[in-house]
Amino acid sequence: MSNLVAPHGGKGLTVCLLEGAERDAELKKAAGLKKVTISGRVKGDLIMIGIGGFSPLTGFMTKADWKGVCENFLTADGTFWPVPVMLDAAKEEAAGIAVGDEIALYDAEGDEIMATMKVTEAFELTDEEKTWECEKVFMGEGTPTAEDFWKIAKEDHPGVQMVMQQKEISLAGPVKVLSEGEYPVKYAGVYHRPSESRAIFDEKGWSEVAALQLRNPMHRSHEYLCKIAVEVCDGVYIHSLVGNLKPGDIPAETRVKCIDSLVKNYFVEANVVQGGYPLDMRYAGPREGLLHATFRQNYGCSKMIIGRDHAGVGDFYGMFEAQTIFDKIPAPAEAGKALLCTPLKIDWTFYCHKCDGMASLRTCPHGKEDRVLLSGTMLRKMLSEGGDLPDHFGRDEVVVILREYYQGLTEKVEIKTHKAALGD
Amino acid sequence: MSNLVAPHGGKGLTVCLLEGAERDAELKKAAGLKKVTISGRVKGDLIMIGIGGFSPLTGFMTKADWKGVCENFLTADGTFWPVPVMLDAAKEEAAGIAVGDEIALYDAEGDEIMATMKVTEAFELTDEEKTWECEKVFMGEGTPTAEDFWKIAKEDHPGVQMVMQQKEISLAGPVKVLSEGEYPVKYAGVYHRPSESRAIFDEKGWSEVAALQLRNPMHRSHEYLCKIAVEVCDGVYIHSLVGNLKPGDIPAETRVKCIDSLVKNYFVEANVVQGGYPLDMRYAGPREGLLHATFRQNYGCSKMIIGRDHAGVGDFYGMFEAQTIFDKIPAPAEAGKALLCTPLKIDWTFYCHKCDGMASLRTCPHGKEDRVLLSGTMLRKMLSEGGDLPDHFGRDEVVVILREYYQGLTEKVEIKTHKAALGD
Repeated sequence: MSNLVAPHGGKGLTVCLLEGAERDAELKKAAGLKKVTISGRVKGDLIMIGIGGFSPLTGFMTKADWKGVCENFLTADGTFWPVPVMLDAAKEEAAGIAVGDEIALYDAEGDEIMATMKVTEAFELTDEEKTWECEKVFMGEGTPTAEDFWKIAKEDHPGVQMVMQQKEISLAGPVKVLSEGEYPVKYAGVYHRPSESRAIFDEKGWSEVAALQLRNPMHRSHEYLCKIAVEVCDGVYIHSLVGNLKPGDIPAETRVKCIDSLVKNYFVEANVVQGGYPLDMRYAGPREGLLHATFRQNYGCSKMIIGRDHAGVGDFYGMFEAQTIFDKIPAPAEAGKALLCTPLKIDWTFYCHKCDGMASLRTCPHGKEDRVLLSGTMLRKMLSEGGDLPDHFGRDEVVVILREYYQGLTEKVEIKTHKAALGD
Repeated sequence: MSNLVAPHGGKGLTVCLLEGAERDAELKKAAGLKKVTISGRVKGDLIMIGIGGFSPLTGFMTKADWKGVCENFLTADGTFWPVPVMLDAAKEEAAGIAVGDEIALYDAEGDEIMATMKVTEAFELTDEEKTWECEKVFMGEGTPTAEDFWKIAKEDHPGVQMVMQQKEISLAGPVKVLSEGEYPVKYAGVYHRPSESRAIFDEKGWSEVAALQLRNPMHRSHEYLCKIAVEVCDGVYIHSLVGNLKPGDIPAETRVKCIDSLVKNYFVEANVVQGGYPLDMRYAGPREGLLHATFRQNYGCSKMIIGRDHAGVGDFYGMFEAQTIFDKIPAPAEAGKALLCTPLKIDWTFYCHKCDGMASLRTCPHGKEDRVLLSGTMLRKMLSEGGDLPDHFGRDEVVVILREYYQGLTEKVEIKTHKAALGD
């Protein structure tokens, strides 16, 4: 028997991925269906729906779902859900599609059939509606006015851009997922379905599992978050985003290598599991923190580590808004429809020389001059220029991997420049 | 409104301490009552009953309570309670006492009237019964047979000795407590009644408070336990025993000074409160861990930090028996009667050179040679001989205080020896 938290929504894991003969038959049928090409974000969402990571969702959202989620964090049937999960199609693409039709969803990159969907609703989201969605989903509490938000959001918020660039028509309906894309092969052993992570945790006899969300290389501050969780929970799931990030971020392969090395050298392996999930970042800050907790519940985690500026970008959110939002969300009357994965809120963490170890603003009374603090920008500069990182910031084994990655980048640029000079 | 955990037992804080005119009147009456002199342990228990620290207890236990507590952790009315709370009297003392009588309880040291009690039951506990109690309360799970237990318990277990030396007659009944002894003056600002600690926590807006039990000087391993709790709770209550210990242990005044210095130099003061409680150690290991959680619930704590060999002595208990016992205790049907303060279980902690900070067996994968480990005996030897402690073991500010204490001891011994040599 499993002692893990139940999947979100009260219906178990709602897996929509077909396999074997069922999949073969569906693929055959799909070839004759009207084609809709999906974006990277939609692909990630689709795979998550397929593997039960977005339980209890079994398809893309209706307009009522969309409105409820934006407004009150609730789908039309009263289930907690923090961000819209939408399938968009261009007007021309959607023109021939009627409610009741089955359609085939194609990966934009590989031209692979990813899924079929039975269309239950097709509706337009106007620019005004998308604007409203963005203000609901991406605007931090501290933003004085929507005008202030839009002054910077249009150019600097990748999540907002994604929503505003969505094509005109939204299609809702249940899906049958036919592929997990490149993930099972590219991230073999790291990419897990929720049923797999749950089996791993059950095998270890865990009941309280904390999830660490990662989209950046893991330095000592993340390690410390993790280790606090290891001290007080049965185990930790280091769960990296292996979908798409914004340009300039470090790719998942490199990050996974860093985590491997950290786990090997600095963790008791019995207490940690590394995994990867196929979503793109939305950079929705507090709302994305809630999404992280929601799908981690499906992966078997009852605690979600939420640190400083979780899932943030630029200065859009307050430093700890992704922590406090957990205290403000609605509590659906039916227990199964409420979010059961609770936050493990941890303050800003760093190495402090006077503390003689890792600490946070909650535990360290010392001054800025005693602390090893480094912005992401400074870190990237130091790594790419080959300079030494300050002591205690990262683990040597990890820094070596990051340096290699950055050197590779530099070499690529040099080769390109060289070729350009030769007129190639 | 308070967000703190409710006191144990479902009846609020059951305060039995009289003050002002009520106390004056009771004291006058007490002077004419039959006198019973109490031991140090009974005095501590009595004060705790007085200030509501032992809520819902309002007096000493009946035979049915005693039996239920030893056997099933339940008093006669089905409330969780882990150790007997008994008042013992010599046969001669008890000879003239009848059920229904009021008696006066006198401090053995100061001859102060501590309380009055209405006797509801007087019963003998035979040596066989005390033996049974000791085996139930003090015998660790790993002890092969009772015979093995008694081979060492008689000489080496101070808690067992206390029970076996109890006088023949046990007196049960509700008390009116008239004094808190030396504690409010001797430990002014540190000694708290549960109503006081609760007011402090409420003032800080805390809801989840973790308690750290301390009876030894606070080194970095204790600091680390505390800091993990600070990271994940609203605050920590560093709650030292200021009652009696076994000979050779460091007195409470010195320990309180060490904590003062630690809090001042290494904690964010807003997140920590220091307190003291008036009990003697029972060295009941797992059962005492439960007692610590029970009365901490009354002080307003919902989490009890339980580390390695909690409340242990010698090798009587398994290293983590005081953690696992929390999973085995009965859960009374009435919520109020169950223990609500849950354990924050933390593994063996130490500084590790490779981890470059504090760690535990759950988080550190390295070897013994990388860890700074020091037994209590070695520590005492190093401190009293003036040798240097290994780096990272304790904080300098604390070590200085301990050194002073040990030097004072040596000087006293030297003076004595000198006087002895002079024939004085």
